[in-house]
Parts: sequence; C-alpha cells; structure tokens
Amino acid sequence: MPDSSPPVGAGDLLQILLDGSARTKSELAAITGLSRGTVAARVDALSASNLVKSVGEAESSGGRRAAQLAFNPAAGQVLAIDLGATHATIAVTDLAAHVLEVTSTRISIADGPSAILGAAFDVGRALLAGLPSARLLGVGIGVPGPVEHSTGQPFTPPIMPGWDRFNIREHVRSEFGVEAFVDNDVNVLALGEHTLRWRDVDDLLFVKVATGIGAGIISGGSLQRGAQGSAGDIGHVQVPCNRDSMRERGDEADLESMASGPAIAARLRELGTDAAGSADVVRLVRAGNPEAIDATRQAGRDVGEVVATIVNLLNPSVVVLGGSIARAGEHLLAGVREVVYRRSIPLATRELRIVSSRAGESAGVLGAAMLVIQHVLTPASIEARVAS
Amino acid sequence: MPDSSPPVGAGDLLQILLDGSARTKSELAAITGLSRGTVAARVDALSASNLVKSVGEAESSGGRRAAQLAFNPAAGQVLAIDLGATHATIAVTDLAAHVLEVTSTRISIADGPSAILGAAFDVGRALLAGLPSARLLGVGIGVPGPVEHSTGQPFTPPIMPGWDRFNIREHVRSEFGVEAFVDNDVNVLALGEHTLRWRDVDDLLFVKVATGIGAGIISGGSLQRGAQGSAGDIGHVQVPCNRDSMRERGDEADLESMASGPAIAARLRELGTDAAGSADVVRLVRAGNPEAIDATRQAGRDVGEVVATIVNLLNPSVVVLGGSIARAGEHLLAGVREVVYRRSIPLATRELRIVSSRAGESAGVLGAAMLVIQHVLTPASIEARVAS
Repeated sequence: MPDSSPPVGAGDLLQILLDGSARTKSELAAITGLSRGTVAARVDALSASNLVKSVGEAESSGGRRAAQLAFNPAAGQVLAIDLGATHATIAVTDLAAHVLEVTSTRISIADGPSAILGAAFDVGRALLAGLPSARLLGVGIGVPGPVEHSTGQPFTPPIMPGWDRFNIREHVRSEFGVEAFVDNDVNVLALGEHTLRWRDVDDLLFVKVATGIGAGIISGGSLQRGAQGSAGDIGHVQVPCNRDSMRERGDEADLESMASGPAIAARLRELGTDAAGSADVVRLVRAGNPEAIDATRQAGRDVGEVVATIVNLLNPSVVVLGGSIARAGEHLLAGVREVVYRRSIPLATRELRIVSSRAGESAGVLGAAMLVIQHVLTPASIEARVAS
Repeated sequence: MPDSSPPVGAGDLLQILLDGSARTKSELAAITGLSRGTVAARVDALSASNLVKSVGEAESSGGRRAAQLAFNPAAGQVLAIDLGATHATIAVTDLAAHVLEVTSTRISIADGPSAILGAAFDVGRALLAGLPSARLLGVGIGVPGPVEHSTGQPFTPPIMPGWDRFNIREHVRSEFGVEAFVDNDVNVLALGEHTLRWRDVDDLLFVKVATGIGAGIISGGSLQRGAQGSAGDIGHVQVPCNRDSMRERGDEADLESMASGPAIAARLRELGTDAAGSADVVRLVRAGNPEAIDATRQAGRDVGEVVATIVNLLNPSVVVLGGSIARAGEHLLAGVREVVYRRSIPLATRELRIVSSRAGESAGVLGAAMLVIQHVLTPASIEARVAS
C-alpha cells in the first residue's frame, strides 16, 4: 500500500522547477491544481528563501507579461569533504552540484578526527570566504570506513584509529551550525559517478579496488545503504572456489585478502619483485611489469567471482570499477569481465556494461555534495526552511 | 536531483485516504492546499469510480454535519494466480489484499501456458462469478522461472517448457480485458511475506529453498528487480569455498546443485537412502531420519555461505527462509544461521533476524495480488481511471 502523500506545500512546488525549466504562477497553478492565492503565497516564501528567482517574462493570454520563475541553484552552498586514507579533497558546490571551489591535500586519516576535520574545516572556511556571498546549507563527508547511517558515526573502521563512533555531526554543528551527512567513501563515489555519468541508469554497482575493496549499490534509482548503513561491504565476503585461484581447498580467505592492492603486492614479493603496497603495484603495472600485470588480472578474476554473484543477485545495467588498481590500466577490468560474462545468467548479462570509472578525482566531492543536496531539496526540508 | 512531482490530481488525493482514516472535504482541502472547488470535483470523480465512499458525518465548525470520506477497498477486485512447478493457487482479493475467494489445485507447469493459464482462468472466472458484484481491475501472476520485467514474459525458464517468451499479458487481455502483472514466484513470495508480516521493515531478503533456489530482495522499502527483472537469481551463483563443503577443490558447482531439494536427495541416495526429490527429503526430515537431517543442515550451511555474502552486500534487517525444505523443520535455518553469524561483518549482523517464513501457503497469492494493487493505486493509474 503506498504511503500517504505529504500536503502540497512550497517544497512540492519547488520539485516541479527542479527540472530546470522556468514557469509562470499561472502555469504552476494549472500544473498543481493549487488555488492562485496558494501558489502566490508559496512562491513568495520560496523567493524570500532565494530558492526561486525571476528569469524574465512570458506573454500571458491577456497580453500582459507574467514573471517566469525558476529554481535558483545559487540559493545556498554545500561544503563537500572527501576523505581517503592518505588524501582529502575539499570543495564548495552550489545546489546543482557544480563545483565552485576545490582543493586537495595529503593527509593521514590515522591522525584522528579532531586533527583531520579541523584542517578540513579550515580549508572549507577559506574556500567559503573566497566566494562573493555564501550561505552554507550543509556539509557532506565521505570517510574510508563503515558508517552507521542513523547516527553518521564511523563504526569500528579498520583503517581509521580514533574515529570509532566519533560524533562527526555534532562536530560540524558546533563549527558551522549546519547539518552534516556522512557516508563511506565508496557510497560517496557511487553517488558521484551516478550523478556525473549515469543519471538515466537505475541499477548501478560501483566497485572500488584499492588498499581496501568495497561496493556502492544503486538500485531502483536510489543508493541502498541497508538497515544499518553497512551495505556494500564486499571486501570481507568469501570468494567462490575456482580453478584459477591460487588458494588451496580449505583456505578461508576474503576478497580483500586476495585482490586488494596490498594482496597483489604480497604476491609480487613472493615472486621476488619489490612491492610494498597499492602505489607500487600501480607503478609496476604502468611500467609494463609482466608479473604485476598478471597478478592484477588475476585479482580482477577474483573480484569477478564476487561481482558475478552480485550481477545474478541485483541485475545491474552497469558495473563501474574504480580505485587506484582499476585506474592503473585495463588489466583489472579484463579479469572482471572474463569471469562475470562466463558465470552470470544470460538475462543478467544481456545488456550489462562493465566499465572503468571516468569520473576521476572529482567523483568523491561530487558524491559528498549530493548527500547534502538530496536532503536539502526534499519537499519536507524546503518546507521547514521556508517556514522558519 | 529529485524528479519533478506529478500534478496534484484525484490520484494524489486518494493517496491521503489510503491510510484507512476517513476525512471531510474541508480537511482534504486543508491538508493539500487545493481549492475547495478542486477538492469537490476530485472527490466526485473518485466517488463515481467507487474508490471513495461516505462513511458517516463529522460535526463541522458551523454546527452543520459534513460527510466523512474514506477509501473503498471494495471498489475493485484482483485475480491473483500463484503458479509453481506442481501447484496452482488462484484467489480473488479486494484492493486491500484481503482474500475473498481462494482455491488450490495440482498442476504440471510443463503442460504449457495455454493449458495451465486456460485452467487457471476458468477457476478465476468461477470465483469472480461467486461474488455478488465484481469489477476486475487486474490479474497478478507468479511463475516458477525468470521473467523479463519490461514485457512480463518468461525468459528461458528452465522448468517451464513451452513458456519461453510466451505473451502472458496479451493472453490475459484477450481473456479479461485487463492488464496482467507477471513476476517470478520468489519475488511474489517476498512481496507477500513483506505485506503480511514485515510492513515496517525496509530491507528484507527472502530465500526460497525447494526444487530450485532463489531470492527476492526488498531494499529501501521496494522490491528490487534490477535492469531486466532477473535480480534474485542466487541458484546459479558459485558457492564460496569452505572447510565443511563436500566439494573438491576445482569443482565448479552452483548453489542449486549443492543445496536444493534434488541435491539433498542425491546425497541421501549416495548414502543408500531412497529419496527421489524434495518431497522425499521433507518426508525423511519430518520422520527424524538422521542422514536427511544432517544433509539438510549441510544444505543450510551452503545456503548460508551465499546468504553471508548477501548480508554483507545488502545489510538487510530480516532474512526469511521459505520453500518446502525450509518448512520441513529448523534444520535448514540452523545451518544458515551457523554460517551467516560467523561470516558476516558485525554492523550487518548486530540486529539481523534470520527466520522461517510464517506467511505459509497464502503468501504467493497475496504477493501476486500486491503486484496489481501497487500498480492500480498509484496516482497516475487512478488519474487515468477517473478520467475515463
């Protein structure tokens, strides 16, 4: 049974304008069935909040000219913070997710939340100060570890010492007086990739292969986080048995221990090649080292074993591979494709595309901005904003 | 960016009444912001279609009594057909998914679509004829094989000879003059189970273990079918390696070949016990046969290896096990629980419940009815109905 729809307020009116087209008040009354007085009152409220602006005039039936109204993405700004193990990218965007200012820096996430967030906030404040006028509506943050969705708190994150159950929202509120939206880095990348390149696709799987391995799931057009927010953790699933695997029967090994950057580096060390971690693997693959290329392709096959299961389970139309190992060339992609097209059922692979991420460095901050924008532009949030 | 909302029509007005509470026209005008004239016109249209009925009067502010309006689930009926390999259950429900009439019969799905659907339609017509007045709004059908969602056609279904790409919708249209909604039996069971017992749960995984093995996925409150409609096919995924498995390294075996009813029966035959298929396994387990109980528990562990991957991937709050093997006792459930709680990450299992299906035989027809009801009660469908 569908839920009851909310009352038709200013927020609902704004949804109509989010397609980017301008309309007159008469057109809005005709579209919604609202009385002209109600439309006028709600447009006034939206204009007072700067969410709607006049963009010219249209010829009306009586020969008079009527104001054309449009959504104003400059009504507010979003601070987007994309944190990795060793990098931070910080951007200010408008409400259409256009990046207005951006800066990147090296960090160590293990320095803990006060140091890392403090430095990111300093950068954010400087970026905001550089804008002619800024009205911060929210802060979106991606972090390299699991996040409990209901609280926005990192939950026993393996590579983020000091961050476990740290109250990021409260920290942001006391600093900027606005709400924070926190999610894990892979969900944020999936949102960014979807927004940038695949808006028309309802079912997308994003897989990041780097120092860790994780997935972001878009099903039915929405990011799926699951009950607690831990959906997408494929790094800790057991890999199906297969003939090509290096494993002995009875080994219990999860995907991350077989196919992550450090796992590939460990295999190269066994073969006598000096490789400490993901960065060395990427360097060797780019230099054409045959062992590194072979090991990366084998990692792709192992990732493919798990992706094949997910393709049968979720029937996405696009699988996007990202992360440093995927960006080192086509070898990981080739291994994934080899296994997925062999293993998955025909109906699930008939129109399946498996591609490398093209969104690049900006996907993280874009996704972090979308965490905020998807929230502040819901009818209920707009309602609260214009009423206050 | 959220989509534009549709115009506020009679369909949107009805959504407000779907919570089951009665309201006056004045209340509806206040809730929606629609003018009183618009509300009156839309209520008239809904009343003419019988979707809204008067249920008494409320004291209005001026001392006059105003009619209370409510959703009328008797405005139309749904024919729900749940087809398995060897059974058919046929029911007529109202628009609140209450079963008005139901009958079950033995069939062989391999008799093909004309024979099977013809017989089901005869039963349906007889059930409808038994009602004092009936207005059929749609037919919902669950079938034991993959269905291409965009066409409603079975797609290379392994146990349904003669059904491949059969145009069920056209068959229903020429017979009843209404739309048909077709889905695979496991999606239909997941919808039925969700509607009956877990309406408040947004993330649910339904796993059926019988002659075949499949899953139905509810994420973010909605059934997820994927790009072509094949989501949930876990019978053909490779099972992760594990110490307990009977398999040799290098075997390639999918879940169905390891843990389905026929696979358990085959294992029992190797041990010298006479068992031809699922029905014998169920009989032996219920009789307390120790080999059958052990083999069923081991099948549960194998199912658990795949469910553990899905729990990490989707983070559901409930996993429901159904199908004949699950209904034979707690042994399959025990095996699944044993593996899932050992393998899945803490955040994903902290509040996870793994339970046996309680909806029983009625879940199939109830889910088939929901396929129709979810469609005919959308604002756009109601709009089209009251306009015609």
